[in-house]
Amino acid sequence: MSTDASRAARGLVTTGQDDGGQRPGRGRPPRYSQKELLDLVVAVFNARGYEATTMEDLARATGLNKSSFYHHVSGKEQLLSLAVDRALDALAAVMAELPAQAGRPVQRLEHVVRRTAEVLLDELPFVTLLLRVRGNTRIEREALRRRREFDARLAAMVREAAEADEIRSDIDPRLATRLLFGMVNSITEWYRPGIRPSSRTDIVDAVVELSMRGLDVRD
Amino acid sequence: MSTDASRAARGLVTTGQDDGGQRPGRGRPPRYSQKELLDLVVAVFNARGYEATTMEDLARATGLNKSSFYHHVSGKEQLLSLAVDRALDALAAVMAELPAQAGRPVQRLEHVVRRTAEVLLDELPFVTLLLRVRGNTRIEREALRRRREFDARLAAMVREAAEADEIRSDIDPRLATRLLFGMVNSITEWYRPGIRPSSRTDIVDAVVELSMRGLDVRD
Repeated sequence: MSTDASRAARGLVTTGQDDGGQRPGRGRPPRYSQKELLDLVVAVFNARGYEATTMEDLARATGLNKSSFYHHVSGKEQLLSLAVDRALDALAAVMAELPAQAGRPVQRLEHVVRRTAEVLLDELPFVTLLLRVRGNTRIEREALRRRREFDARLAAMVREAAEADEIRSDIDPRLATRLLFGMVNSITEWYRPGIRPSSRTDIVDAVVELSMRGLDVRD
Repeated sequence: MSTDASRAARGLVTTGQDDGGQRPGRGRPPRYSQKELLDLVVAVFNARGYEATTMEDLARATGLNKSSFYHHVSGKEQLLSLAVDRALDALAAVMAELPAQAGRPVQRLEHVVRRTAEVLLDELPFVTLLLRVRGNTRIEREALRRRREFDARLAAMVREAAEADEIRSDIDPRLATRLLFGMVNSITEWYRPGIRPSSRTDIVDAVVELSMRGLDVRD
């Protein structure tokens, strides 16, 4: 998260009262913590689509008026930036964990598969938004660049494990990576916390089991 | 594809000349076969998002004017219906193939995994559109209903193979189905014919290999 964006978002949280007088009969606008505000904004982006969401939609969903928003953020792009950075920072943190850095290649790969699935479930709305970014603006292109960087590191781990003969080597590592993390990412398409019967642990275990056995060297 | 929709789309193809005189300096509007027209419309839906696409967008992309469209189709919903039915009909046809109906459960499952991946690659824009349908209208809800029906048949095949001890039974069949066909569907996120180095055969083989080995009963 950039310092500017972070400062702006903190600013946004404390502004509601400035505009209270402009909303007769509806009382003071609500105040949000940064986390609460971003959760709401991301829910609107995911429901309506980022492209289709207007500042009016965000104002309506949060009960803040448009001038409150524009006083503190340059527009919805800045909110997108905060949201996708949260997902990207969590994924980058996985790569920095010790078990992703040290040990046999296949063990490092398994750790990253597991932790990526966990991050996806823990940060579901943020990763969902990230996966839908199409690259129409500078902020979206920067998000795609960071996503590609993460994907390249995943592919390098698969390649390394294949070269060490710890996983099968008959599938191109780049293709195997796309398919396996396509499986992980597909969770955003159907998982709804509290609705689906599968628990977080069931899902993470199933992802790890299917991936790692799928990659097994044939006996 | 419903007969009405089909007739309407055939009608659309032969209408261009009616409106030639309304477009001074640009000559006669182009004429399309049904397939060409639907290819163009689906490309616009996928690029802009179905929700965000207007009849003006479709008119601009095809060179037909709006009244040509409205004379023959009730709106973009009918075009969506034709497009998603093409994907759903191709998937339903897979389930009707003999190797999906007869043989050991694990072999039937492998056949369906392979053929589903092939249909996805052969009908890429149509399946991509189908997978993005959100259920905001009657036609979208009907598409979701048919998609759920297909998913339920997939899950039943996985369950049957697990009950016959031909695949692992330690993962809930419904969860395994979601993850494996999530992997298959994820191809729509990254595959671009003629750009990516992996061939159709490489991708289909990799999907089958990763899925079926991932489901293997541990020796």
